[in-house]
Amino acid sequence: SNIRGYTLSQLTPLPEIMMPWSNYIMSNGGGVVSSTTHLLDFLEEPIPGVGTYDDFHTIDWVREKCKDRERHRKINAKKKESAWEFTKSLYDAWSGWLVVTLTGLASGALAGLIDIAADWLNDIKEGICLNAMWFNHEQCCWGSNETTFAERDKCPQWKSWAGLILGQEEGPGSYIMNYFMYIYWALSFAFLAVLLVKVFAPYACGSGIPEIKTILSGFIIRGYLGKWTLLIKTVTLVLAVASGLSLGKEGPLVHVACCCGNIFSYLFPKYSKNEAKKREVLSAASAAGVSVAFGAPIGGVLFSLEEVSYYFPLKTLWRSFFAALVAAFVLRSINPFGNSRLVLFYVEYHTPWYLFELIPFILLGVFGGLWGAFFIKANIAWCRRRKSTRFGKYPVLEVIFVAAITAVVAFPNPYTRQNTSELIKELFTDCGPLESSQLCQYRSQMNGSKAFVDASPNKPAGPGVYAAMWQLCLALIFKIIMTIFTFGLKVPAGLFIPSMAIGAIAGRIVGIAVEQLAYYHHDWLVFREWCEVGTDCITPGLYAMVGAAACLGGVTRMTVSLVVIVFELTGGLEYIVPLMAAVMTSKWVGDAFGREGIYEAHIRLNGYPFLDAKEEFTHTTLAREVMRPQRSDPPLAVLTQDDLTVEELQGIINETSYNGFPVIVSKESQRLVGFALRRDITIAIENARRKQEGILLTSRVYFTQHAPTLPADSPRPLKLRSILDMSPFTVTDHTPMEIVVDIFRKLGLRQCLVTHNGRLLGIITKKDILRHMAQMANQDPDNIMFN
Amino acid sequence: SNIRGYTLSQLTPLPEIMMPWSNYIMSNGGGVVSSTTHLLDFLEEPIPGVGTYDDFHTIDWVREKCKDRERHRKINAKKKESAWEFTKSLYDAWSGWLVVTLTGLASGALAGLIDIAADWLNDIKEGICLNAMWFNHEQCCWGSNETTFAERDKCPQWKSWAGLILGQEEGPGSYIMNYFMYIYWALSFAFLAVLLVKVFAPYACGSGIPEIKTILSGFIIRGYLGKWTLLIKTVTLVLAVASGLSLGKEGPLVHVACCCGNIFSYLFPKYSKNEAKKREVLSAASAAGVSVAFGAPIGGVLFSLEEVSYYFPLKTLWRSFFAALVAAFVLRSINPFGNSRLVLFYVEYHTPWYLFELIPFILLGVFGGLWGAFFIKANIAWCRRRKSTRFGKYPVLEVIFVAAITAVVAFPNPYTRQNTSELIKELFTDCGPLESSQLCQYRSQMNGSKAFVDASPNKPAGPGVYAAMWQLCLALIFKIIMTIFTFGLKVPAGLFIPSMAIGAIAGRIVGIAVEQLAYYHHDWLVFREWCEVGTDCITPGLYAMVGAAACLGGVTRMTVSLVVIVFELTGGLEYIVPLMAAVMTSKWVGDAFGREGIYEAHIRLNGYPFLDAKEEFTHTTLAREVMRPQRSDPPLAVLTQDDLTVEELQGIINETSYNGFPVIVSKESQRLVGFALRRDITIAIENARRKQEGILLTSRVYFTQHAPTLPADSPRPLKLRSILDMSPFTVTDHTPMEIVVDIFRKLGLRQCLVTHNGRLLGIITKKDILRHMAQMANQDPDNIMFN
Repeated sequence: SNIRGYTLSQLTPLPEIMMPWSNYIMSNGGGVVSSTTHLLDFLEEPIPGVGTYDDFHTIDWVREKCKDRERHRKINAKKKESAWEFTKSLYDAWSGWLVVTLTGLASGALAGLIDIAADWLNDIKEGICLNAMWFNHEQCCWGSNETTFAERDKCPQWKSWAGLILGQEEGPGSYIMNYFMYIYWALSFAFLAVLLVKVFAPYACGSGIPEIKTILSGFIIRGYLGKWTLLIKTVTLVLAVASGLSLGKEGPLVHVACCCGNIFSYLFPKYSKNEAKKREVLSAASAAGVSVAFGAPIGGVLFSLEEVSYYFPLKTLWRSFFAALVAAFVLRSINPFGNSRLVLFYVEYHTPWYLFELIPFILLGVFGGLWGAFFIKANIAWCRRRKSTRFGKYPVLEVIFVAAITAVVAFPNPYTRQNTSELIKELFTDCGPLESSQLCQYRSQMNGSKAFVDASPNKPAGPGVYAAMWQLCLALIFKIIMTIFTFGLKVPAGLFIPSMAIGAIAGRIVGIAVEQLAYYHHDWLVFREWCEVGTDCITPGLYAMVGAAACLGGVTRMTVSLVVIVFELTGGLEYIVPLMAAVMTSKWVGDAFGREGIYEAHIRLNGYPFLDAKEEFTHTTLAREVMRPQRSDPPLAVLTQDDLTVEELQGIINETSYNGFPVIVSKESQRLVGFALRRDITIAIENARRKQEGILLTSRVYFTQHAPTLPADSPRPLKLRSILDMSPFTVTDHTPMEIVVDIFRKLGLRQCLVTHNGRLLGIITKKDILRHMAQMANQDPDNIMFN
Repeated sequence: SNIRGYTLSQLTPLPEIMMPWSNYIMSNGGGVVSSTTHLLDFLEEPIPGVGTYDDFHTIDWVREKCKDRERHRKINAKKKESAWEFTKSLYDAWSGWLVVTLTGLASGALAGLIDIAADWLNDIKEGICLNAMWFNHEQCCWGSNETTFAERDKCPQWKSWAGLILGQEEGPGSYIMNYFMYIYWALSFAFLAVLLVKVFAPYACGSGIPEIKTILSGFIIRGYLGKWTLLIKTVTLVLAVASGLSLGKEGPLVHVACCCGNIFSYLFPKYSKNEAKKREVLSAASAAGVSVAFGAPIGGVLFSLEEVSYYFPLKTLWRSFFAALVAAFVLRSINPFGNSRLVLFYVEYHTPWYLFELIPFILLGVFGGLWGAFFIKANIAWCRRRKSTRFGKYPVLEVIFVAAITAVVAFPNPYTRQNTSELIKELFTDCGPLESSQLCQYRSQMNGSKAFVDASPNKPAGPGVYAAMWQLCLALIFKIIMTIFTFGLKVPAGLFIPSMAIGAIAGRIVGIAVEQLAYYHHDWLVFREWCEVGTDCITPGLYAMVGAAACLGGVTRMTVSLVVIVFELTGGLEYIVPLMAAVMTSKWVGDAFGREGIYEAHIRLNGYPFLDAKEEFTHTTLAREVMRPQRSDPPLAVLTQDDLTVEELQGIINETSYNGFPVIVSKESQRLVGFALRRDITIAIENARRKQEGILLTSRVYFTQHAPTLPADSPRPLKLRSILDMSPFTVTDHTPMEIVVDIFRKLGLRQCLVTHNGRLLGIITKKDILRHMAQMANQDPDNIMFN
């Protein structure tokens, strides 16, 4: 039932925004819109407006691609006429590269900006830099000579709020003051973020990836990738991240990059006027987005290919790669983290892993899969509740409430108080001799042998590690609960970082446990071979990374792209096998509870018309069971090719709500001639009555090449052949639906006519297919029970 | 004309092999074969043989996928019947992973074997290890304590042939003796290789990639990936590499991996009985092949995606990745080069590159593009000559002749005498203080400052470098000429390594030139900023790598996968921009001379029915201009659904040579019912006459659901509905060919029926499309001139 209504209400909670569009959709019935410009008679002028799309409609990939080839042919034909035309053709040929370059540059720059601003604003929650307000905590202390390396976070220039207001840094009073200021700032940022989103750009909320997937599959959502969305999303993303909510900036960065791609595509007519070509730019932009989000250009391209893109020709692969690289290089020159890396949590390990460790890695995979399945179910249930009850009407209050709880609970625990990216970095990093983290407070076994810096053999855990374990366990529970309620709030909110944090915490805990097990029981069979006392055999940081990948995999069900993204974070082929083992396990475990990833689940929740390329259609139904009209329906509304009058035609259009009508030879023969679109017919009749003289209500309408022979006194007939699509896709009524679904997916169709022995029987639209698939999925248990 | 005849004569020069198949093809006319098992009436038993393919026919992707889903449904339905059925369904579900794991294991093991064997056999040309014959030169000297590091290649255990036979290692006599033995061994290996190929497995010759592309696109070449081909290709590849011919093992390794994939797929009915599913395994296998050839698992997957695969669902992406990783790990455990790396020429650079250097990098790209275009034209011209003249009849003589010239010319020049992989390694490697190569004989500027080992500042070239430059120039010319004549010989021959060698030589020459320019003219504006005396600003090894990528890109027109492969060789994101600049330039320059890569050119030369997904169809023709029959042709051979007798049907089949026949309602209405295949009809009639009583020549044949009403005395009618494909693909006669081509590519069709207003007009087969595309390409100049 969600599919029918296209209720995007989660995105647009404001009734005044939702209403007109919702009405429009309702009136569309089996909604189909098409462009037929490639078949225009060349003698006639093209009618303005024919070949464009309404908002919230599906594009016709085949026609769009034909349009583009037609445009290309025209430019090529003119090329040799003059130097100016030649320059234009060059500009046209290069515009693809230009637009992806611009997109890459802008995405990289914006990502750098967001990183720096979020970092600064995040530190504002704790204190301020006295001599330079625009420095964050770390930058503030860089100039200080008074601190040692171990205490590099403490310097006189950086004042906590308690230090500034109360004049003292320590003591319960300052703790409470800092606690209060932390909550104050968190709430302010969250309030500002949700207010900006609500007032200026409702589309800026959420991660944006479900909508981008839908748009890339050929749906039109005007304004979703516009300049206002870009501006507000950039600003509110910084605020949302700084507010300390359990969310990440990685998903929204993809949305930001796609906005850049969409905006730049308006500079180039090749892309702005063709919805299919524009989607090539968007595919490249989403690769650039992931590239800057994770510092993984190749991973970004594979993400675009595996997760979001629908139509991905090889040319786009190449350009996506380029955009991802440009974005990565811009971000690296901005160097937002001061570590010459694209992400905060880049790590390098030096210890190999051992075969036995696959067991804990696979256990982490199981945990990731369970977490993913649980998260999807819980989050979707919560979001459905938000949509269906009155409670969803107060998004601002909800955000403030969640932000308040997050801030109150997060502050006391150092692992939840800090920035999630920094937490992940700390969990990923192996304990070296220079590491001052609580997680590395092992009891030293080597007396004074500090010279031997590179090796960090397994040691018994000290009290710091035990304390950290407890805090990590609490942080894990906190993150799990808060993330469920945070994803879906009306602020920009990514899911990658919280998921990774949850996995990293779990992984680190498992890693330390295995490490201690190996230390105390090194005579066990499993450890004896390779893990002697004094050797560095277990890397808890690697467990954290494997756990992070497993949890992210469980939630998103990404596979190759995820492994490649994490591989690019570590820079070593060595650890791909543990990663793959964990990600694969996580996917299989997750799939056992439901095959959808979180993005597909949100797409279905919002009822977008998205035909998933990954989901297999495995039923044995035939086209005639899905097509309309079914036996109980009214007969199919068809037009005859040469015996309707303008009045009759308008009557048919007004009586029905279909988006297009098959044209047949005659009522008797039912043989199919072509397909005409409601929108095109309306535009063409209006155009004719305005421009052509002698067109009356009684004028005969004909779709044939030559006018029919008419009585002498009849008014001038109206030729509508130019808007007739003379190559509609047809299948026979006996075609298995699996083939029909395949055709729709691969060719990007919106409708397909059904014939039997050459006679028109009915029509199947994309929506009919989605409805049928939903029906089949729900009815499956019944079917099996009846058998 | 090549397309029509499918003359594979280059591959199968033996008349007795070519003839029967060639005849078969000729008789096929508009050749189409299809499988329609999914529409079988369930009451009737499936007729054995229906749904299989003949050799050298194209598969029907849509039907194959339907068949697989049907099989899957059956297994799923039975799953809960018994524990045995459940185990079978588990086996079925896991067989995809099992087969790619096995393929990866086998490919890795074979690659390691080939590497070790080729290395040993290659050193046999120069001498022998006295105490252990099975050691190659390097291994032989490992155990020796008498040699210093600089002279690590010289040890008493290793005897050159002159040393062994004449008893002296130095002097003109030994030189001539070594020269002679070098030629002797080279000729022996080459002779043995070509003999084995000719006698046992003619398909083992060449690189195999053009054929694999064709097979993956849905063509059937029986035996091309069989066990004999695998065995002979593995053995002869070692011989061919060792013979010193200008060829590489990388392309053939892909063929070897695909053979493994094909052989293992026979263990699993899911893959052995379904041509479409089998191709998924082959896609994964080709990824594994590139993975072991270049030590680049991700590059391998992208190669499979970009270069060879046709149908690449996401599941295959994931399995390809797995196969590539398994293969890489097996190869790494074998460690054939003793450097813990997968390839000989793995390098790490430590110097950044500077913006100005993009100019020489782009120049290298231009060189690569020119080389690629020249190579393709020259090689294709030579191969065409080989095919069309009597000269192609003596493949053994040709190989021996080329091998003799190669050996004679190669021996005096150290850069051509050595193994090409080693040459590439030497050219890629930067000059460090431990490098003893002639290329690194710079005049030292630092007196005795040996302690400072890591920095290697730019220095003036010494006499060794000048000598090396001359030798490299000669080697470049030699390699260019020999590669043209070598690729296409009847021995396993890859193109990657020779192309990379040519690029690496050119790149190293340019690199040294720029380095010397920067040293002597460091006050020039371009150098002043960043290249002072005593700094290490130019890395000639990087130029070699960029040149290698550019040349490989020019020949194969790969883009992303090539960059990723080379990126995985260097292990640094740093150098992707120079690589991309060079590869892009090379592709554009190459495309200016002809858009085909070498593999597509060879596919066209051999006339395989391959519909390239990359090539755009840009003409404005309509389906009715391409379909047959055209006006001058005899009318379309059709069957009517219920008024033919067995005799008439057999008459139609015998009179025509088409592979399939449309079935219509009646001659008058011409309305389409379905499509029946020649092979299926023949099998069904034979089957009926054998098994059903009362079927005579006068029996009525009907394709309808119910038997037609017949006179009382007529013989029992024959129902053929089970072999009728009731969902043939149709397009209207007005459909632009660009859409038709798109449908054929995306859905993997073999034929499509053309209708007009519901009436059957004609048929378009894949071959018609290829013929039309060839016509359009040839006629283009005329068309423009007439306009």
